[in-house]
Amino acid sequence: MTVHLVGAGPGDADLVTRRAEALLARADVVVHDRLVSREVLDLVRPGAALVDVGKTPGDGDTQESINQLLVTLGRDHDCVVRLKGGDPFVFGRGGEEVEALRAAGLAVEVVPGVSSVFAGPLLAGVPVTHRGLASGVTVVTATSEGGVATDFTRLADATTTLVVLMGVARRATIAHDLIAGGLDPTTPVAVIERASTDSQRTVRCGLAELASIDVAAPAVIVIGAVAGLDLGLMPSPLGATAAGA
Amino acid sequence: MTVHLVGAGPGDADLVTRRAEALLARADVVVHDRLVSREVLDLVRPGAALVDVGKTPGDGDTQESINQLLVTLGRDHDCVVRLKGGDPFVFGRGGEEVEALRAAGLAVEVVPGVSSVFAGPLLAGVPVTHRGLASGVTVVTATSEGGVATDFTRLADATTTLVVLMGVARRATIAHDLIAGGLDPTTPVAVIERASTDSQRTVRCGLAELASIDVAAPAVIVIGAVAGLDLGLMPSPLGATAAGA
Repeated sequence: MTVHLVGAGPGDADLVTRRAEALLARADVVVHDRLVSREVLDLVRPGAALVDVGKTPGDGDTQESINQLLVTLGRDHDCVVRLKGGDPFVFGRGGEEVEALRAAGLAVEVVPGVSSVFAGPLLAGVPVTHRGLASGVTVVTATSEGGVATDFTRLADATTTLVVLMGVARRATIAHDLIAGGLDPTTPVAVIERASTDSQRTVRCGLAELASIDVAAPAVIVIGAVAGLDLGLMPSPLGATAAGA
Repeated sequence: MTVHLVGAGPGDADLVTRRAEALLARADVVVHDRLVSREVLDLVRPGAALVDVGKTPGDGDTQESINQLLVTLGRDHDCVVRLKGGDPFVFGRGGEEVEALRAAGLAVEVVPGVSSVFAGPLLAGVPVTHRGLASGVTVVTATSEGGVATDFTRLADATTTLVVLMGVARRATIAHDLIAGGLDPTTPVAVIERASTDSQRTVRCGLAELASIDVAAPAVIVIGAVAGLDLGLMPSPLGATAAGA
C-alpha cells in the first residue's frame, strides 16, 4: 500500500541507485514514462506488470489520468513503483503525483535519482560549475509546466551556467532572447542528445549559431563559458556493471 | 591506470549508483572527502587503501595537493576511485581534478552522483519545481570557488527556486540581500541539515527569520514558494537495501 516515486536517472542502468534497483526487484507494478530506457526496465522483477504511460511533458489531461491510475494501483498492490526519468522532483511533476496520492490517503516514498540536468553535461565533459568560469547554475525548461514560454531575456548572465531542458524546438527563440538580454553571441553552447545512452552525441557552437545547428530532442542545452570546456573524459562503459567489468 | 571520479550521493548508501558500487568493490585506493559518509565507505572493498583528504571547500592549497596525490596514485594503481560527496561536477571542483589528471596523461572516468542540490529538498518533501510555484531553479554557493561572496541582490526572483549550498554561516547576509533585491520577506525558506542521514532535520521559516533560526552546517537552504510545501513523504528506510527490505 505504498507508492514509491523513483528516479530512474538519465538512461544507463548503471546510473540507477541501489534503492531504485532494490525496489524494481520487488515491485508488483511499475508505471513508467516513455523516456525511461529499456536497460533500466530490464531491472524490473520478471512477472511484475509494466505500464507505459507515455507521458508528453506539459500534457495536463494525461497528468490527471496518471494521478488517478497511481491511486487505483496504490490501493490494490503492496508495492507500486512510479519510475520517472532523471529525478522525480526536477521538472518531473512528481510533486503533483505525490499530492494526489497523499490526498487519497496513500503512503508515498520518493527516491531521488541522478538528474539529466547535471549528468548530461558531465557525460559530455562539461562541469556545470568551474572556478573562474561559472559560480552557479540556473535550470529551466523552455516552456513552463503551466504552458507559459520562459522569458530568457532575464536569464542572460555571463557568470551563471544556464541549463535548458526540452528546449530543442524553441532554440532559435532562446538564443535570440538571451542575446537581446545582453549575453555575448559568442557564448559557448553544448547540446547533449540522448545523454548516457549508447547514441549520446554532443554538438557545440556559439550562441548565435544555436538556431542553425542540426540537433534533435531529447537533449540538454548548456549555455555559458563551461560549455567551451571538453575535459576529454573516458566514456563510461555502458552496462559495465551487469557485464562484471 | 584509470582514475574514476565518482559521485557518492548525499550520504545514504542506498543512494549510491550501481556504477559507483561496482567501482568501490574493485578499487585499489579510494580518496574521499570528509563529507562522504561511513555507510558509503562501508561499500569499499576490504583491503583497499582509504585516504581521507578532509577537504575544506575553497581551500586552494589543499586542492592542489589533492590533484598531485591523484596523479601519483593514478600512475601507481590500476583502479583509483576519487569519491566526492554528491555529484563530482556540481560545486565539487571535479573539473579541476580532471584537468590535472589529463595534463599528466592519465585516463579519467567521471560517474555522476545524486546531488544534494536536489536530493536535500526532495527528502524534506520539497520539490524544487512545482506547477504554479516555480518554473526553474538556480543553485549557488554563498561564496564562489574563487573566494568571492555571491551577490544575492541579483538573485531575487519569485518565480525561480533558489538553492544555496554552504550558506549557513552567511545566512543573515543572504536574507538581507535577497530582500534588498526585492524578494518578499515572507518568502518560505526550508533549511535541510545533514540530508539523507539518520540525523536529517528540516527547519522552516520566512526569509526575514533566516538569520535568527538555529541551524548548523552542512545544510542545504531552499528559498522560494516551494519551500512552503511539505508533501508528507514517508521517510526512506535508511540502509534498507543492505538489510534486504
